[in-house]
Amino acid sequence: MTVNKQWIFAHAPDGKLATSDFELRENPVPEPMAGEVLVAIKLLSLDPASRSWMHGRTYRSALLPGDVMAGWGIGEVVSSRAPEFEPGDLVRADFGWQQYAALPARQLIKLDKRHRPEHHMGILGTTGLTAYFGLLEIGKPRPGETVLISAAAGAVGTIAGQIAKLMGCRVVGTTSSPEKCKWLVNEIGFDAAVDYNDSEFSRGVKQACPDGIDVYFDNTGGDVLSVALSRMNIYGRVICCGVVSNFDTATPLAGPAGVPGFLVTKRIRMEGFIVHDYATRRPVAEATLARWLEEGKIKAPVDIVEGFEKMPAALTGMFGGQNRGKLMVRV
Amino acid sequence: MTVNKQWIFAHAPDGKLATSDFELRENPVPEPMAGEVLVAIKLLSLDPASRSWMHGRTYRSALLPGDVMAGWGIGEVVSSRAPEFEPGDLVRADFGWQQYAALPARQLIKLDKRHRPEHHMGILGTTGLTAYFGLLEIGKPRPGETVLISAAAGAVGTIAGQIAKLMGCRVVGTTSSPEKCKWLVNEIGFDAAVDYNDSEFSRGVKQACPDGIDVYFDNTGGDVLSVALSRMNIYGRVICCGVVSNFDTATPLAGPAGVPGFLVTKRIRMEGFIVHDYATRRPVAEATLARWLEEGKIKAPVDIVEGFEKMPAALTGMFGGQNRGKLMVRV
Repeated sequence: MTVNKQWIFAHAPDGKLATSDFELRENPVPEPMAGEVLVAIKLLSLDPASRSWMHGRTYRSALLPGDVMAGWGIGEVVSSRAPEFEPGDLVRADFGWQQYAALPARQLIKLDKRHRPEHHMGILGTTGLTAYFGLLEIGKPRPGETVLISAAAGAVGTIAGQIAKLMGCRVVGTTSSPEKCKWLVNEIGFDAAVDYNDSEFSRGVKQACPDGIDVYFDNTGGDVLSVALSRMNIYGRVICCGVVSNFDTATPLAGPAGVPGFLVTKRIRMEGFIVHDYATRRPVAEATLARWLEEGKIKAPVDIVEGFEKMPAALTGMFGGQNRGKLMVRV
Repeated sequence: MTVNKQWIFAHAPDGKLATSDFELRENPVPEPMAGEVLVAIKLLSLDPASRSWMHGRTYRSALLPGDVMAGWGIGEVVSSRAPEFEPGDLVRADFGWQQYAALPARQLIKLDKRHRPEHHMGILGTTGLTAYFGLLEIGKPRPGETVLISAAAGAVGTIAGQIAKLMGCRVVGTTSSPEKCKWLVNEIGFDAAVDYNDSEFSRGVKQACPDGIDVYFDNTGGDVLSVALSRMNIYGRVICCGVVSNFDTATPLAGPAGVPGFLVTKRIRMEGFIVHDYATRRPVAEATLARWLEEGKIKAPVDIVEGFEKMPAALTGMFGGQNRGKLMVRV
């Protein structure tokens, strides 16, 4: 415990993200100052948004080349110079991609040790809350409605689909392979799933949604959004949650041809949101999700990559659509 | 009063709408049957949506070649075989493009003769109500906010802009010439207006909206929508009212590049509507607009083309952006 490995954001990606955009560095483990807490990081999160942080200002300030790559993680307190924390506490913070971090106590969130660390990162973390608030607050699904979810095998999609099932909806997912389609239906409980790499994708969505689409949970933008808009019902709602199709590129695609035409003729509401806007209501959502998890009403699939050295490869792999459920790295 | 001139929808436009897509025909004036009312049509409305009726099913069934072209009008009852109407009554209906129509009484709406017929067609008609419900129900502007309106010199735009001023907003319009910009500011009371044919259009919008855009009333789609999205503030609202930029073409344009990217990062709500959805609340809106009109708080500019023969030319001219205020033809 003397060396702190760190992944440095070396330079902004030129087109597609590559592992060479990151650089591994070794530094001494930091010493906590008064009011600080030293944390050994156990799990680090990989998120589609990571890519956009490398490209400019979004809802957080842009990263600069030479910075430790940004990212949330879960860790265990090693030593504390703040009264609120003691060794062994489980904590969450924006640690960055590294093995150890010394942070002021106010930047740490103490976690309930009754839940597994990976669940704090997935269903009880940002992705679970994103699924919860996006689906329920923006999508407002009603029993019997059809909910389509893109990137359905991802961290947000798997949870959003299960919540929609609990609301009494027909739930259809789109994903990137026949294997993941089967997994969504057989393991996660989706009513149907469609492979967007299939040449008959558009027809597949139509067949899987015989009564049209009432709520579309959009994690991708791009073609799936276009197809969804063409199949939306009157008074449909589109939850704009993320734009995976656009994250891993320097030149954003043109928008879907159905905007704004379909929005007018079908009175569609399309609305973006960011989970942090719902911070004050987080306790309600956490309690609900924890309850469903404990009661076995919802599964929280996680995809854990072993080894800190694999961080960059795991992130680029996510854009290749390889993960199932919440992707994270065990440090 | 023996001949009834009619404009027939001859064939679906092949690309841009042309006057040759219509055919003038003469028929005898119809005789009203029992329960019907014979109306002499005085004013016929020209609407961007007319174009889409010729191209397929929208929120009304598609027109077929050979049909009398569809369109709302205002007329005077000539003779009545229904107890609810008597000669001299002012009525509104979907008469179609013709000089006389015999319609069942239930298809007619009796109008208040204290208001001028052209106001029943404009500010107190569908376009005024579209501006009212779109701005207030979808846009929900708050005092001090900036409201951008495209096709601002048109029937909906002129009214929407004035309502936004009454709500205490900064109001900026986009239109198609420097002359119409001046007219919007000097005659209608907009705070600023920007010519979208100017090569510096995007910069012009930025300068006219120094605090960004909170509400965008979109009558056009296309480039103006893209520019607006790039200047929207967080929690901005886009009212999807119509798509003039796309109406007069057989091949819809690609959507704006900012969809869904900007919708997520700026938490924008984009929502389409159709005025008929608010039918039950029409009396409140009509009373409000009539009151503002009588008190001189709002102007109701109308652009009246004289002569039934000019119907097709007036419609194609509207897509060229020639009208100011509500465009109609005096039959």
